Amino acid sequence: MFKLYGFPVSNYYNMVKLTLLEKGFEFEEVITRPSQEDDFLNKSPMGKIPCLEIEEGPLSETNVIFDFLEDISSEVPLYPEDPYQRAKVRELSKSIELYLELVARQLLGVVFFGAPADEQLNEKVSVELDKGVAALNRLLIFSPFAAGEQMTYADFMLYYTVTLGNMATKKVLGRDLCDELPGLAAWLTMMDGNPLVQKVNADRDEALKAMTA
Amino acid sequence: MFKLYGFPVSNYYNMVKLTLLEKGFEFEEVITRPSQEDDFLNKSPMGKIPCLEIEEGPLSETNVIFDFLEDISSEVPLYPEDPYQRAKVRELSKSIELYLELVARQLLGVVFFGAPADEQLNEKVSVELDKGVAALNRLLIFSPFAAGEQMTYADFMLYYTVTLGNMATKKVLGRDLCDELPGLAAWLTMMDGNPLVQKVNADRDEALKAMTA
Repeated sequence: MFKLYGFPVSNYYNMVKLTLLEKGFEFEEVITRPSQEDDFLNKSPMGKIPCLEIEEGPLSETNVIFDFLEDISSEVPLYPEDPYQRAKVRELSKSIELYLELVARQLLGVVFFGAPADEQLNEKVSVELDKGVAALNRLLIFSPFAAGEQMTYADFMLYYTVTLGNMATKKVLGRDLCDELPGLAAWLTMMDGNPLVQKVNADRDEALKAMTA
Repeated sequence: MFKLYGFPVSNYYNMVKLTLLEKGFEFEEVITRPSQEDDFLNKSPMGKIPCLEIEEGPLSETNVIFDFLEDISSEVPLYPEDPYQRAKVRELSKSIELYLELVARQLLGVVFFGAPADEQLNEKVSVELDKGVAALNRLLIFSPFAAGEQMTYADFMLYYTVTLGNMATKKVLGRDLCDELPGLAAWLTMMDGNPLVQKVNADRDEALKAMTA
């Protein structure tokens, strides 16, 4: 059985967890924090979560795990079959990660971990966000899914990027991504209705409650 | 015929150019600088190069283009066939990009574009480099190729990351990646002997000469 290392408050962890659930894999959740312990670095070389362990060995990096799961089981396909459309999904997913997730992530210290307000950082993030939002508006389709008719990994990447990132951009920059990415709000409502998304979110909320208790 | 947008001094451009040559695709090089012009953003949403245009439309992001080219032609395979080994190549490639290329890239302003020395930046890069190098030493195999017996995209990603990045880390930080990644020096010598690498490098050197003339 697969082992998924990480914890249900992490947005990357939840992207992979949702994928495993959607594709019907059996897996065990091994609650693990990012760590620089040698033992964990042997599984995940940067010490990041999530990390997936299968019989052959460990795998880190969320999009790498996406591609692996699709390679071994396309019964519930989360990429289009056409190579160009598949590439467009990968391009969109990578753009969400580099130009939205990694940008908004810079604000998490202030929002969640008590870091002091930093106007210079906010200015930098705001400029990067302008560029990322413009790029995503050229790639997003929302008809009804992020990359078109089919639900794909891009939806999972976007969903857990936005649910966390938008909290941060609203709070620190006063910017609501729903105002900047037309179609996002309706798509979020649709995704919120997905029963497996609801399961992942219920686990997340329970873990959050335990953390703050 | 494919169109490859970019210019031969860019390391990412050269990774894709080498891939097209190795796989035997016909393509036209369209010399293009990164640009925020609307016309180019329609092809490459962040305005970055390289961008590949095929009959179906444009594609940006180097690793996305790698995967697309493999999906449409595996006659000269640049990924292992086994899904886990393939995933390990993707994990290695992504780690080279995020934890070495994007780290060393922060020094290029000082090395090539006359930015002032910045001790605080050097310190930040140095710490990130320590972590990236340690992660790569857990993933690199060099036996004889970066990911094992077969030449893969990870070799192309590493080659053009290191040939540019090591120039920067040596000059600014006094750190030679050949001292820090055991096996790198011998692998570089092997890669330098590849005739298509030689062709890409000759084009790069000619473009560099024209630029500095």
